[in-house]
Amino acid sequence: MKHEFDEHVAISRRDDATWDADLAEGWVVGGGVNGGYLLAVAGNALRHTFPGKPDPLAVSAYYLSAAAPGKATVHVDVRREGGSVATAAVDLRQGDDTRITALATYGDLDRLGDDVRTTAEEPAMPPPDQCVPNTMAPPEVRAIAPLMDRFDMRFHPDHIGWAVGQPSGTGVLSAWFRLVDGREPDPISLLMVVDALPPVTFDLGMMGWAPTLELTAHVRAKPAPGWLKVRHATRNMAGGMFEEDCEVWDSAGRLVAQSRQLARQPRSSER
Amino acid sequence: MKHEFDEHVAISRRDDATWDADLAEGWVVGGGVNGGYLLAVAGNALRHTFPGKPDPLAVSAYYLSAAAPGKATVHVDVRREGGSVATAAVDLRQGDDTRITALATYGDLDRLGDDVRTTAEEPAMPPPDQCVPNTMAPPEVRAIAPLMDRFDMRFHPDHIGWAVGQPSGTGVLSAWFRLVDGREPDPISLLMVVDALPPVTFDLGMMGWAPTLELTAHVRAKPAPGWLKVRHATRNMAGGMFEEDCEVWDSAGRLVAQSRQLARQPRSSER
Repeated sequence: MKHEFDEHVAISRRDDATWDADLAEGWVVGGGVNGGYLLAVAGNALRHTFPGKPDPLAVSAYYLSAAAPGKATVHVDVRREGGSVATAAVDLRQGDDTRITALATYGDLDRLGDDVRTTAEEPAMPPPDQCVPNTMAPPEVRAIAPLMDRFDMRFHPDHIGWAVGQPSGTGVLSAWFRLVDGREPDPISLLMVVDALPPVTFDLGMMGWAPTLELTAHVRAKPAPGWLKVRHATRNMAGGMFEEDCEVWDSAGRLVAQSRQLARQPRSSER
Repeated sequence: MKHEFDEHVAISRRDDATWDADLAEGWVVGGGVNGGYLLAVAGNALRHTFPGKPDPLAVSAYYLSAAAPGKATVHVDVRREGGSVATAAVDLRQGDDTRITALATYGDLDRLGDDVRTTAEEPAMPPPDQCVPNTMAPPEVRAIAPLMDRFDMRFHPDHIGWAVGQPSGTGVLSAWFRLVDGREPDPISLLMVVDALPPVTFDLGMMGWAPTLELTAHVRAKPAPGWLKVRHATRNMAGGMFEEDCEVWDSAGRLVAQSRQLARQPRSSER
């Protein structure tokens, strides 16, 4: 069975360095196509670039212009290929316009071993059926964010007050997450998951779109099947910008991805 | 007065896209030249690339091979220049070998405004004279890490046990920091400061060199003159890799830089 997500991130090879993609309508949010989805499309091209190194370990993307649904090309420039890791520069373009430019290091997560020593603590979440589902979003929100129809998200009730005009003010947002098409998470989909939730600034009462300047994701392990826990937090808003840290935990209780993005503060902010 | 640091990061323009640099002997640590110093050299070339946008806002560097003291070239490829920010790809090379490849977005921190809302808390540190100075490092350490002679560092006593074979095991390292030449911190030097302390894995009892795969730094404000507080922490070591988060606070108590790097676990690790 082919899942929707795999169709949406599909790429076809044009030549050694160029891939064709078709950005799906269903990933629009606000004025453009979701940045995490773009990262997964570019990441999928890289996945097929390096034999034996299918997994993103680190990806740093700079967002240059808003993407629209439709044709796109992915351009890969291999910068170094070593024994265990390979690094490439990658652009996602539409016509002459570059949407994102990124650097990425790929490897094989299966070959890294299972040795884990961690002090990171899995975020506490009520069970999914005691959280707030994204299907409760009002129709006007879903109209400008069709990407929400791709997801089954269950928001932690402590940080969903913004949906009814009562943001907690702490700068945290967390949710259970899975794709509605039943596709299980993998390292490529994690590149999308780190940028799938609403901006953490919603929890600060700033309800506008928060354009990403830069996002770096580290995939730390292959995710187990099932629900993911996704937690966003911001601590420092300064000079019109804020950082958004994201952690993704799998159903086995393992920290499988970390990301940080630098984004612009929403302009239409309620303070 | 010209400070040593400014001489060491000096670049001269060869053409529109190429700069010459000379990597100083004094920044060697272990098997190569310190990665933060390389970032400051490349960052200095970008500083002179964009009129009116002198400050790094976000820089993501991928470390491809170890650098040696001596001649280097910095190659800048402008990817987008907008009204308030500009993004470029930049390589630092020695001969045909690329040492680091990076993406960076620059702007003008003075134009961003002083609006700050933060929940980040300044790390608690005893006063500098109650901390452990790097001048107490044994001669054999200073011999393999001449870069330490560039710094006046005062380590938090709670996380210096590794120096006497008694690491705390928590994965934290913090220090007061300033350059011995008296040069005050600025956005370019912060690119070096985020990678100046010993690897945070020292505090976990792993005393080897920890090669950086990727480092992203966000400069959030211009630092005030005086001591900086630098805090490194790691939470997750998995598959032979760990993340190292760094915060830099200035003497006015402001969070001026954040960084995260993904690094390889030291091979010669005591567990």
